[in-house]
Amino acid sequence: MSLNSIFQYFVPKDKKFFPLFEQAGANLIEMAKLLKESVNSTNLEIRKEISKKLEDLEHTGDNITHQIHLELGRNFITPFDREDIHALASSLDDVADFIHGASNRMELYKVEKPSQAMIEISDLILEATEHVATALYELKDLKNIRNITDSCVRINSVENKADYIFDKAVADLFEYEKDAITLIKYKEVLSAMEDATDKCEDVANVLESILVKNA
Amino acid sequence: MSLNSIFQYFVPKDKKFFPLFEQAGANLIEMAKLLKESVNSTNLEIRKEISKKLEDLEHTGDNITHQIHLELGRNFITPFDREDIHALASSLDDVADFIHGASNRMELYKVEKPSQAMIEISDLILEATEHVATALYELKDLKNIRNITDSCVRINSVENKADYIFDKAVADLFEYEKDAITLIKYKEVLSAMEDATDKCEDVANVLESILVKNA
Amino acid sequence: MSLNSIFQYFVPKDKKFFPLFEQAGANLIEMAKLLKESVNSTNLEIRKEISKKLEDLEHTGDNITHQIHLELGRNFITPFDREDIHALASSLDDVADFIHGASNRMELYKVEKPSQAMIEISDLILEATEHVATALYELKDLKNIRNITDSCVRINSVENKADYIFDKAVADLFEYEKDAITLIKYKEVLSAMEDATDKCEDVANVLESILVKNA
Repeated sequence: MSLNSIFQYFVPKDKKFFPLFEQAGANLIEMAKLLKESVNSTNLEIRKEISKKLEDLEHTGDNITHQIHLELGRNFITPFDREDIHALASSLDDVADFIHGASNRMELYKVEKPSQAMIEISDLILEATEHVATALYELKDLKNIRNITDSCVRINSVENKADYIFDKAVADLFEYEKDAITLIKYKEVLSAMEDATDKCEDVANVLESILVKNA
Repeated sequence: MSLNSIFQYFVPKDKKFFPLFEQAGANLIEMAKLLKESVNSTNLEIRKEISKKLEDLEHTGDNITHQIHLELGRNFITPFDREDIHALASSLDDVADFIHGASNRMELYKVEKPSQAMIEISDLILEATEHVATALYELKDLKNIRNITDSCVRINSVENKADYIFDKAVADLFEYEKDAITLIKYKEVLSAMEDATDKCEDVANVLESILVKNA
Repeated sequence: MSLNSIFQYFVPKDKKFFPLFEQAGANLIEMAKLLKESVNSTNLEIRKEISKKLEDLEHTGDNITHQIHLELGRNFITPFDREDIHALASSLDDVADFIHGASNRMELYKVEKPSQAMIEISDLILEATEHVATALYELKDLKNIRNITDSCVRINSVENKADYIFDKAVADLFEYEKDAITLIKYKEVLSAMEDATDKCEDVANVLESILVKNA
């Protein structure tokens, strides 16, 4: 039990952080929707535009993180430990990085036709970001710990599914793709997508760690 | 110094966590033994069976982690900071993931003949998990800090050896393997094995961090 | 607010850690200079010698980390939380690992001609280590929080640039390098170099986390 946990019973805690985390969650959902749209499109122009939009949204995410840091500098009493707010903001940044990264690699490596596995993992990324957003929304009211825990369990389950699809897709590449350079390209894009779900799991880990500290 | 450190002198701390960590350690040793058996076998059927067993043991590990989380929810006073118990459980999970992952990749990518480097790294993984289990066993009695530190030093040393063998094996692949796709397959399996020793080092880092906090 | 933060107003804190962190910073700069020299040289003998020197400097770094751990064992009152000192030392170790790792891969994989991207990223690694060293130097005097924050912002900016160059270089490899094995070799060396800047960003994250805790 930290001093923070003692204080929480009699000191009003600053509530400015929660809207920022909610914005970060909404931003990730928007990014995941765009990535899904991209891998479901065969129009290279549309994919290029989406990649540009994702870059902008990644900057939006960076700005939200920056505001969280500014609030950390301003507020003496935080709703939970300062370093956990910092860790949570960083882990959300990482999710945005890999969603944009997946799209960016498709663009840079000139992947013309997204594979079925990419489409399936993009669905899972969207699902994971929705659970992340739900958990962030519930965070402001630690009475609903169960809801946060449920979201974390669901994020872990989505990550397992993405892992499975990734493994199978790479196995298929080794079995059927005879051009090594094409194989590497597809593997790298899939890998960035799978990393995006891993990073959602990291967010869940930070959230669980916050819950156990404040239990 | 945290409040926890003050409490530890006069509050009996719950001892339920230690048997769970011991089980997690024993589970990792069993997994490492199976991986070693797998890379030493040329019988594809046996390797397939082992991969299935490793999947089951990974679930066993997940269950142990889940019980640790349940105990965290139940216990107000923990033997050390709650977030460290959480971090330790997560890092042990990661070791199990990569041991199973190495076996799984061999299976998925149809690696028919494990290389000499795989055999050597599997020995090192077993050695590392044994040191991890020793350190976890000693954790219940912080009088033996020296034993835990020694195990951590040994884990680091094993990781360095695995790193060296991995580097050399990849260099040899670049020198002698002319088929790029075969090269990538072997590199990926070796990489999962080397990651397993990296994750043992992460466990050692969490343990060292616990020691410095409670010193 | 931790007990540590309360103590800091009336307990003199041990200052032995700061010179050690300064040494670690200086060591990283020296390593980055050697890596830069190496990728700018076409003389294989010189590159071999530099790789050997980098290995020695990595050991120097390990020794500094070991001394930091010894001090952690000796000192009851630390300038900031014990686990943060540990995390900072670990993250500095990681930077050294990847700088040496990049040089080591060039050597092991027999990369004869470093690419333009390697030269550019080596410049950025040097820049990042200089900002790391500045931040570590300012750490002893938390009055200059602004200087540390500025260094962290610069490290992030350098990492972004390295990321961009890395992405472009890999895209070019996919476009122009027709030999898959050569492509993988160059990609792996570039990747170790880019990881070195990522690890500098991790150092910045630890520093920022220390600042928010002690704000």
